[in-house]
Amino acid sequence: MPTIGIADTTFARCNMGAAAVDELKQHINAKLIRVTVPGIKDLPVAAKKLIEEQNCDIVMALGMPGSKPQDKTCAHEASTGIIAAQLMTNKHIIEVFVHEDEGRDDKELSFLMDSRTREHAKNVVKMLQSPEQMIKEAGTGQREGFADAKPLGR
Amino acid sequence: MPTIGIADTTFARCNMGAAAVDELKQHINAKLIRVTVPGIKDLPVAAKKLIEEQNCDIVMALGMPGSKPQDKTCAHEASTGIIAAQLMTNKHIIEVFVHEDEGRDDKELSFLMDSRTREHAKNVVKMLQSPEQMIKEAGTGQREGFADAKPLGR
Amino acid sequence: MPTIGIADTTFARCNMGAAAVDELKQHINAKLIRVTVPGIKDLPVAAKKLIEEQNCDIVMALGMPGSKPQDKTCAHEASTGIIAAQLMTNKHIIEVFVHEDEGRDDKELSFLMDSRTREHAKNVVKMLQSPEQMIKEAGTGQREGFADAKPLGR
Amino acid sequence: MPTIGIADTTFARCNMGAAAVDELKQHINAKLIRVTVPGIKDLPVAAKKLIEEQNCDIVMALGMPGSKPQDKTCAHEASTGIIAAQLMTNKHIIEVFVHEDEGRDDKELSFLMDSRTREHAKNVVKMLQSPEQMIKEAGTGQREGFADAKPLGR
Amino acid sequence: MPTIGIADTTFARCNMGAAAVDELKQHINAKLIRVTVPGIKDLPVAAKKLIEEQNCDIVMALGMPGSKPQDKTCAHEASTGIIAAQLMTNKHIIEVFVHEDEGRDDKELSFLMDSRTREHAKNVVKMLQSPEQMIKEAGTGQREGFADAKPLGR
Repeated sequence: MPTIGIADTTFARCNMGAAAVDELKQHINAKLIRVTVPGIKDLPVAAKKLIEEQNCDIVMALGMPGSKPQDKTCAHEASTGIIAAQLMTNKHIIEVFVHEDEGRDDKELSFLMDSRTREHAKNVVKMLQSPEQMIKEAGTGQREGFADAKPLGR
Repeated sequence: MPTIGIADTTFARCNMGAAAVDELKQHINAKLIRVTVPGIKDLPVAAKKLIEEQNCDIVMALGMPGSKPQDKTCAHEASTGIIAAQLMTNKHIIEVFVHEDEGRDDKELSFLMDSRTREHAKNVVKMLQSPEQMIKEAGTGQREGFADAKPLGR
Repeated sequence: MPTIGIADTTFARCNMGAAAVDELKQHINAKLIRVTVPGIKDLPVAAKKLIEEQNCDIVMALGMPGSKPQDKTCAHEASTGIIAAQLMTNKHIIEVFVHEDEGRDDKELSFLMDSRTREHAKNVVKMLQSPEQMIKEAGTGQREGFADAKPLGR
Repeated sequence: MPTIGIADTTFARCNMGAAAVDELKQHINAKLIRVTVPGIKDLPVAAKKLIEEQNCDIVMALGMPGSKPQDKTCAHEASTGIIAAQLMTNKHIIEVFVHEDEGRDDKELSFLMDSRTREHAKNVVKMLQSPEQMIKEAGTGQREGFADAKPLGR
Repeated sequence: MPTIGIADTTFARCNMGAAAVDELKQHINAKLIRVTVPGIKDLPVAAKKLIEEQNCDIVMALGMPGSKPQDKTCAHEASTGIIAAQLMTNKHIIEVFVHEDEGRDDKELSFLMDSRTREHAKNVVKMLQSPEQMIKEAGTGQREGFADAKPLGR
């Protein structure tokens, strides 16, 4: 049985961690370990600790970067750290970030945070259980949260 | 008894380290170790030394980036280093940065530096003593220093 | 017989991994190992795992960054991670990124994704089998996907 | 007796290394080891070599980034590397950069390069000999080269 | 006898590697090892492999970043990687980049690529054979390729 880590933040405006737990439970029999940190810049080490101290096979790092320029910089720093944490552990950390200005209003933002989290939870399940299914979907323009993009004809 | 490191700078325009010590003492019985460096770019290694040479369980890295474009770059470099230091030690370093231009005037800036430091000191206490309380606050739009954001309905 | 890793994404709008496999098979007798991840930020660790867990001698990391500013940041983060993964393994990871806005329309974009992948597949073959041929082409303005640049006279 | 490393560049337009040596000699009995490299991007490894191969306890990294946008990028890369070098060695490397456009004219630029170097040399002495003095100056708005900033009242 | 690595690219529009070899041969009795990679982002690991697998004492990393914004980002990523490679090996890697838009026309660009490479080759020789000469030139406004800058009077 795989162990999946879920790290989210108190800064986000909806409970992405709960959405991840709910979706994962519907698709996989796994041990789930959850942790919550203040903001997205705390996610890289939180994810690494889940991997190295809690033996997680994969981690979801969930966050909602704010809309100010400074918040964009924070998101960049967090993403860079999440990639570094993966390279140090040889484990995938699936980053699920929804920028506060991606939704036109609170309702769309809330929808996006929930749906992107759930679609990436399904990616996590596929990566753990059926990597060959991922290869079948290569280059098909998958998008998480919004509608998929149109694949290009040849 | 946990050991908490506090690193701040001579560059900042108010004593963030003293505010952190004062707030921590009100909420936790811990050994506090303080160090002061010239500027925010000196914080990453200062925090790492607190962890590795002084056995700190967690560190607060306190700074006030200036308002010039060049200062924004410094803040980005410092933040990147603080994240790297965490990944190298598997310990949290809670970054508390208040940009000099976040306050409309000196009074608001001073308020912000004090209140953000104190709110993050409370985060540190929760992370050490009651991580389950952090999970309860997941996605509730917590902000440190300013008013919290509105959680999104579903 | 060398082992070549091929990592691509479900986000891309055409099957770059299949193009790489097809081109490599025409030019080299090698073991090919393919993996598909959600997006370009998942490529650095995917490539590192191909090297360290699957013994790949070289890896192609194939992706199509989107056209929004945020996508450009993602591409930068992915590239930084791909370079770090190379430094940690002492193996080349040939990054083949085609930005969604590099093509004037879907047709050109599709052509570019296919041709750049195939030209870099040929680079991979040369790097493995005839590095002296690479030296012969030094400074000749090679471009992958578009027409080569004009070498400068002396 | 501590060992202090001093790394500067041939690119800079005045001899920052000589100013550092002169100032340090007035304040501390230390072994000084000096090295000069072409430009600021050569400073990170120069500083790390001073620490690891010459046993320096602390290093001053002195440079004058140019005024073009490309030079700003170089400065960012050098600073990032200097922070990384500190994290890899657990030693402070005090970066003293004076951007060529910080001075209104050559005279002010020259003054700034000299005075900032000397003030940071004093920081180095304090960090080595009286870290408790640094704590006393926490949050007092210290600036190196220009006049100090006004501390904020409470 | 020192071993000097030379890494360049097929992307560049003139043969920087050949210029480096020619200049080095005029000034030093050294073993020269050359490698050519597709683009500048392949240089960091190429340089690291020259150091760790071919025992180079120092490496020249030669490239011509393109003039588009995306090319500037590539150059930044390559430079960051080159600095990281140095920190991981404690060896200098002298980066010689000439941006395609630094020359007003093809003739000046070609001149610049040749002259900057040759001047940095001389730096490499000095760093290997007479580091004290580098210290003598500290702060003298040395520029590679263009005319030197004016040293500042005191």
